[in-house]
Amino acid sequence: MHSFKGHSMGNLFDYLKDPGIISLAGGLPSPDMFPRQAFRLASRKRLKSDIDRIMQYRPIRGEPELMEAIQEFLRRDGISVTEENMIVTSSGQHGLDLASRLFLDPGDAVLVDRPTFSGALIAFQLQNPRIAGSEIQEDGSDVDGFRDQIKKLKDIGVRSKFIYVVPDFQNPSGITMSIKKRRALLDLSYETHTPIVEDSPYRDFRYAGEPLPSLYSMDQQERGGHVIGVYTFSKLFCPGIRVGFNIGPPDVIRKMVEIKEGDIFNTPKYNQDMCAAFLTEMDLERHIEQCRRYYSRKLTAFTEAMKRCFPPESGIRWTEPDGGLFLWVTAPEQVDTMQWLHRAVKRKVAFVPGSVFYGNNPPNNHFRVNFSYASREELTEAVDRLALSFREQTCR
Amino acid sequence: MHSFKGHSMGNLFDYLKDPGIISLAGGLPSPDMFPRQAFRLASRKRLKSDIDRIMQYRPIRGEPELMEAIQEFLRRDGISVTEENMIVTSSGQHGLDLASRLFLDPGDAVLVDRPTFSGALIAFQLQNPRIAGSEIQEDGSDVDGFRDQIKKLKDIGVRSKFIYVVPDFQNPSGITMSIKKRRALLDLSYETHTPIVEDSPYRDFRYAGEPLPSLYSMDQQERGGHVIGVYTFSKLFCPGIRVGFNIGPPDVIRKMVEIKEGDIFNTPKYNQDMCAAFLTEMDLERHIEQCRRYYSRKLTAFTEAMKRCFPPESGIRWTEPDGGLFLWVTAPEQVDTMQWLHRAVKRKVAFVPGSVFYGNNPPNNHFRVNFSYASREELTEAVDRLALSFREQTCR
Repeated sequence: MHSFKGHSMGNLFDYLKDPGIISLAGGLPSPDMFPRQAFRLASRKRLKSDIDRIMQYRPIRGEPELMEAIQEFLRRDGISVTEENMIVTSSGQHGLDLASRLFLDPGDAVLVDRPTFSGALIAFQLQNPRIAGSEIQEDGSDVDGFRDQIKKLKDIGVRSKFIYVVPDFQNPSGITMSIKKRRALLDLSYETHTPIVEDSPYRDFRYAGEPLPSLYSMDQQERGGHVIGVYTFSKLFCPGIRVGFNIGPPDVIRKMVEIKEGDIFNTPKYNQDMCAAFLTEMDLERHIEQCRRYYSRKLTAFTEAMKRCFPPESGIRWTEPDGGLFLWVTAPEQVDTMQWLHRAVKRKVAFVPGSVFYGNNPPNNHFRVNFSYASREELTEAVDRLALSFREQTCR
Repeated sequence: MHSFKGHSMGNLFDYLKDPGIISLAGGLPSPDMFPRQAFRLASRKRLKSDIDRIMQYRPIRGEPELMEAIQEFLRRDGISVTEENMIVTSSGQHGLDLASRLFLDPGDAVLVDRPTFSGALIAFQLQNPRIAGSEIQEDGSDVDGFRDQIKKLKDIGVRSKFIYVVPDFQNPSGITMSIKKRRALLDLSYETHTPIVEDSPYRDFRYAGEPLPSLYSMDQQERGGHVIGVYTFSKLFCPGIRVGFNIGPPDVIRKMVEIKEGDIFNTPKYNQDMCAAFLTEMDLERHIEQCRRYYSRKLTAFTEAMKRCFPPESGIRWTEPDGGLFLWVTAPEQVDTMQWLHRAVKRKVAFVPGSVFYGNNPPNNHFRVNFSYASREELTEAVDRLALSFREQTCR
């Protein structure tokens, strides 16, 4: 553990304490999309009918009621699982930590996109592995790059334990993996016997284009057992409840239940009950539709302001995601976004410098934007402040 | 991870599914002691006033309101801490896991009593350390045995990273460490620079004798920085809420916050709020007094039945704890309590065989009794069933 230093992402929450700052930094969903009243009603109902079980120890794997609701939720997406394929987690971070602890012994390799979700890197780094990255492409992971890495690592005796991807609206880049790439990634998994960990926090938040099948569902229709799915209720429902779930082959999930017995024992029933109520009692499809409309309008507001404030000659480019909560800004190579952040904070706007999204050798000229939390007015103002902090002139 | 097999403790919960079984197996507090109505009121109040923050991401270390209430709670016990000494955990299991991940690299040693809390062993074993045990004595840990172990391990190049103890009403033995032993253990810690992890889940549940100072408070009045305290709300309030906390030197706690960022991110605010309400709004001292009276009567009911059913000539002995939730039964050496358990389950009574409370080389003639969950009538009946399964005759 001595080598592990943690990341600065947690510290970035400190910026949010200044109420004048417009934060594009967190991964926070908007409270506007929280089903507050339905939450209160579900809470009152469960505390009335089931408080003794809510206050007691409960099974490690998860609440039967929630696991049943999750099965139905996944069926919408062409995935068929039973209880033995599932473990309830204390949200996605815990799901990643379970995968990391199960697969990674010190010195093993894990394959990731460059950039990739910083929270996954933190979970992986706790196991002290080799982080092997390949630059993400416009249509998703560099599958040939992954193949080369696996081969090179094998030649020096290092085992590549799994490939970690966020195929839909990746955090931080906003990139979605094409169907061709999904096919190729699965073939690579079959060819090299390397499991895939598929992280799906935003999959239902698609604002444009047609849904693509999840790697889990594709694998299930072919060989099966090669994909572990990591899910969270943090974005679709709310982060504060801290519930998610992993799906995968029974032997993998059984091992995760054993680790969970040692790391937190059970996930609180109350929190699982709220998620079960969310899936079954709060008009899920309508909620998803509302979120899509709401976040999509924020994305449009943000990118339109970017077009106004950062014309092509500025050298600033950004991804235009089909969904999710994030997009990725690329500045000319000589721009250090950590220094830019310090100027930006003086102008009361914050983002996450891109360097935290790389396991090693980070480029310094990127940053991540979260467009889900700030209001549309704030997003427009934020872009103006970004422009101001970039070249000391307003774009109004 | 491949070497880790998990314990059978989780599986023991399966027994509880048969409603005819009287379980002395779990570590379950009684729902009779759950402040149900106060919980409902606190829940309604917080969900009314603070739902947006309850549903959102929150700081990793913990909620300021809970951390303040904990400071007051510890002050009752002669311990003075600030926020930098504290991290809120997802209960004691998580607190033990954080200590284990922080200190133990593969091959390091951890010192434990024989027997010791099986959940701690599970958390430690996830890091694959050497478990170095010394037989617990009537007045607590075998401190001289620990000293010998540390020396022997040092001689073969193995570092003893910490000593794990439950000084008050130890799980599973029910033994309380004498003041002389506490003094000696602290001296050993100073002498060998070995931190102590002090697990205090039942400290307030004392039914007889005078309270003894915690190791944390003794250390604080002397050198300081040598004890890490692991606490949970599971026994005092309720297990289902899954909240606890660790206290310790700021640099240790800061590292735990970094690990927590990677393993579960934040503990849910709602669950922390219920604990803050428990400490500040639910008449804590009266609740503790009620618990003491209630559990003490159960302990008496159990031991009186044992005296009736297992006279000295039976060869069965048991500890008579001054508090806590457990006691420890010792059978003649030739008795295998795992086999006894199978006969007991047929007679509809369950306990935990002692073998799971040893990291290695377990003796087979012990078992643990939890006397907090079953009613007094059930406890009396359970002892009769134990006697029946022991020698096929009733003691009525």
